[in-house]
Amino acid sequence: MRHGPWKKMLVMTEGYAKTYSAKAATGVIRYCRDEIVGILDSQYAGGDMGAVLGAGGGLTVVADVASARPLGPQTLLLGVAPIGGALPDGWRRQIIDALNAGLDVVSGLHHFLSDDPELAALAAKKGRTIHDLRRPRENVPVACNLASRMDARRVLTVGSDGCVGKMFASIEVTEELLRRGRDADFVATGQIGIMISGRGVPVDHVISDFMAGAVEQELLGRERHEVFVIEGQGSILHPGFSGVTLALMHGAAPDAMIFCHSATRETQIGGIRIPPVGEQIALHEELCRHTHTSKVIGISLNCAGLDTETARAAVDRIQGETGLPATDPVKFGAGPLADAVEAIL
Amino acid sequence: MRHGPWKKMLVMTEGYAKTYSAKAATGVIRYCRDEIVGILDSQYAGGDMGAVLGAGGGLTVVADVASARPLGPQTLLLGVAPIGGALPDGWRRQIIDALNAGLDVVSGLHHFLSDDPELAALAAKKGRTIHDLRRPRENVPVACNLASRMDARRVLTVGSDGCVGKMFASIEVTEELLRRGRDADFVATGQIGIMISGRGVPVDHVISDFMAGAVEQELLGRERHEVFVIEGQGSILHPGFSGVTLALMHGAAPDAMIFCHSATRETQIGGIRIPPVGEQIALHEELCRHTHTSKVIGISLNCAGLDTETARAAVDRIQGETGLPATDPVKFGAGPLADAVEAIL
Repeated sequence: MRHGPWKKMLVMTEGYAKTYSAKAATGVIRYCRDEIVGILDSQYAGGDMGAVLGAGGGLTVVADVASARPLGPQTLLLGVAPIGGALPDGWRRQIIDALNAGLDVVSGLHHFLSDDPELAALAAKKGRTIHDLRRPRENVPVACNLASRMDARRVLTVGSDGCVGKMFASIEVTEELLRRGRDADFVATGQIGIMISGRGVPVDHVISDFMAGAVEQELLGRERHEVFVIEGQGSILHPGFSGVTLALMHGAAPDAMIFCHSATRETQIGGIRIPPVGEQIALHEELCRHTHTSKVIGISLNCAGLDTETARAAVDRIQGETGLPATDPVKFGAGPLADAVEAIL
Repeated sequence: MRHGPWKKMLVMTEGYAKTYSAKAATGVIRYCRDEIVGILDSQYAGGDMGAVLGAGGGLTVVADVASARPLGPQTLLLGVAPIGGALPDGWRRQIIDALNAGLDVVSGLHHFLSDDPELAALAAKKGRTIHDLRRPRENVPVACNLASRMDARRVLTVGSDGCVGKMFASIEVTEELLRRGRDADFVATGQIGIMISGRGVPVDHVISDFMAGAVEQELLGRERHEVFVIEGQGSILHPGFSGVTLALMHGAAPDAMIFCHSATRETQIGGIRIPPVGEQIALHEELCRHTHTSKVIGISLNCAGLDTETARAAVDRIQGETGLPATDPVKFGAGPLADAVEAIL
């Protein structure tokens, strides 16, 4: 799979290593390991963060930019995706240090660092670049179901909550399809996917009237592929994010959906009780039916924290309940989901 | 009902009088007639636009700002809501003329006139104000279902398409409740509602992650009322606008919904076939059920273009089909819908 252009990255998790937000660091470490020189997190400096992050074991952890010097970093990547997307307290100092040390900065925050007068002036003075990955393209039209007429198949990940593995599932399925010789392309729609693949549509930072249009334009503007695997966002039942989720469904006009779910979570982040998966699948299909018929073709079950045997049992159970192929793509590979995608090609 | 603060308005429809976009002019003329001095539309200058707009009969129509001088205008209101919200060709000249003539400008376009260097500089020079009604408030959080805990009842209009009468229904129901001595408050969520009521949340011009949060904050920030009647937007089945619609549903956490439908439209603007109303009602209720239980309590049927007898028959038919109180609030008054709202107070 194509990766982003950023080299010799120092990944900052400062203060967020044990939160959901650190999924940005986890994702970049998992898929772009070759380009990572170390992790910046003062709490774990000198230690190993493999167990904390679920990725990154063996990477050097430093407390600040100065200590990272022997690692030869060229890029500071802000490895968090905090809800609301503001600049975390205390990070400004580290970003200033990085720019002063000659590093570029990659950020997926809603708060655009390149619009920040102090940081923008410093970057200009030092000849460095600040990449704000959530900055949307301009002059996007309102969507009008254009993706539904594309030749390429479109598969969208959806799910029962945020942070449930939609991006991981999308990337793992894409990579498995590529291994099988299929011409698959991963379409990132969030900051972390864009960090990893180097491009995409930051659908949660678009003016709301143009969300679905931005997704449509991203698909129509890509070179031709056999199948696009599109990263989903949020959940149609999450009160904070449901609008973005539905805009993705109607903008991407998927031929098929992969439903992503957690084996252990009973309530969403925020407290809404998660209804049975079968009900959610029916609701997703109903919401697509009138614009472009789409079926859920498989389940991606996030079994993080479970041992292999328990995870295997959970996967078997949901497969039995829904009658759909299921897997945890991180623990057991994306094979069953790639099979389901190939069946519609 | 509280109205906007703008006085002696000249309403411009130039080039759009016969389009859906002119609903902005129609709405403002209907509800703020006392503050309108004339209409600017060169195609109809010297004539009467009552039949063209479905409102505004008897208002003087002029071809340009200079000709409006005897009317004593203080405000130029851009009376269109074009899809995409760009500045229509040829309007710049009229806006410049208006600022030069000492008028303020009220605009609901996505293209912010007060960010336009030429127009902003001219307004500053002339001491005039440009009101961009779609500019959202800053620092809005991601929603977390807070509206569901409010004491005040919340009624949201939803519907089978855009431009189907959600704003009209919301205002008519509010006014009928006020006539009955109820403490009702209209909550505008789009440019036209904001033009009419002078405030609200421009939910289609919010960064997408914060749509539902903006709705939540608008409700939480208002003085206390017995019931909020909240203007809906778009349709959950319209591929261009569905995300905004769902964000409104989850941000407002309505106790009840009024379903707005057209008696004559079989396909949405854009071409999607409109499914049976009963199916749509079930889908709306299902999407609310997990965050805050909400029932559709009545139907607002837009019978524009039908004679009274045909309209009456259409209202009776949908009432029979759904078992819910129905009316065309513009033709027959909002009584049955106000009854349904009072039943939940």
